[in-house]
Amino acid sequence: MQPLRSFDELSLGQRFAFGQFALTEAEIIAYAEKFDPQPFHTDPVAAKSAPLFGGLVASGLHTMGACFGLILGSGIFREVSLGGSEITTKWPAPLRPGEAVAVESIVASLKPSRSRPELGVAVFRHIGTRIADDMMVIEMTATHFFKR
Amino acid sequence: MQPLRSFDELSLGQRFAFGQFALTEAEIIAYAEKFDPQPFHTDPVAAKSAPLFGGLVASGLHTMGACFGLILGSGIFREVSLGGSEITTKWPAPLRPGEAVAVESIVASLKPSRSRPELGVAVFRHIGTRIADDMMVIEMTATHFFKR
Repeated sequence: MQPLRSFDELSLGQRFAFGQFALTEAEIIAYAEKFDPQPFHTDPVAAKSAPLFGGLVASGLHTMGACFGLILGSGIFREVSLGGSEITTKWPAPLRPGEAVAVESIVASLKPSRSRPELGVAVFRHIGTRIADDMMVIEMTATHFFKR
Repeated sequence: MQPLRSFDELSLGQRFAFGQFALTEAEIIAYAEKFDPQPFHTDPVAAKSAPLFGGLVASGLHTMGACFGLILGSGIFREVSLGGSEITTKWPAPLRPGEAVAVESIVASLKPSRSRPELGVAVFRHIGTRIADDMMVIEMTATHFFKR
């Protein structure tokens, strides 16, 4: 992807598509053992009796990371990203091993910083959609600081 | 820690302390290369010229995972946690390699589910505080579903 050169190149409503990912059972278990150790993320047998899931599902943090891995790995924000301060994440549906998820980002708000004229504050909605049934599995509303 | 047996054992304002963690430079780089590839998380030399950080800092997702690793690894929620649906995360200050962070959780809201009487909805504020200067480096407001 062509790297963005400035906050000022962004437009409200602009959409970016970042391709897709899927998480294997082994990846889900390895991530969760370290960062979210709960039986429905780490133990395929115990997960079968999890009341809300009925089987192994990815840690929501893992899904966040997989999305950001794709988004930032694309290089589009490499020259402008200065960091971020806040993310609100919703997981409307569970993500199971092997399910392909498409990732896209939409520009939701753009504000030049008042205190630091060299940067702008961009709010993105980063969305992960399960390809098999068009179900949104993750939605992140994230505040990013970008160079101008 | 003594595992909680039911949502109904929780009280508003109740606090839980989960000990502390620190992330090494190698851990920060390895995490970010996969889940948040940006120079200020992956390249100690390039990070020195990062305008907002001036050095290598942990990916905010990594800090989230380190907190949840401690919280869930304690076992306290093992018998009651059914999953979660939403987390709002703020990172008021950057976290650098080797800095020790104390993790605690406070019960912010408790509501029995109307549609599913067998579960309750608990909102926690999970807080990470840098021990050296009592600076909050992460605050997560998280919605959890617990067995009753």
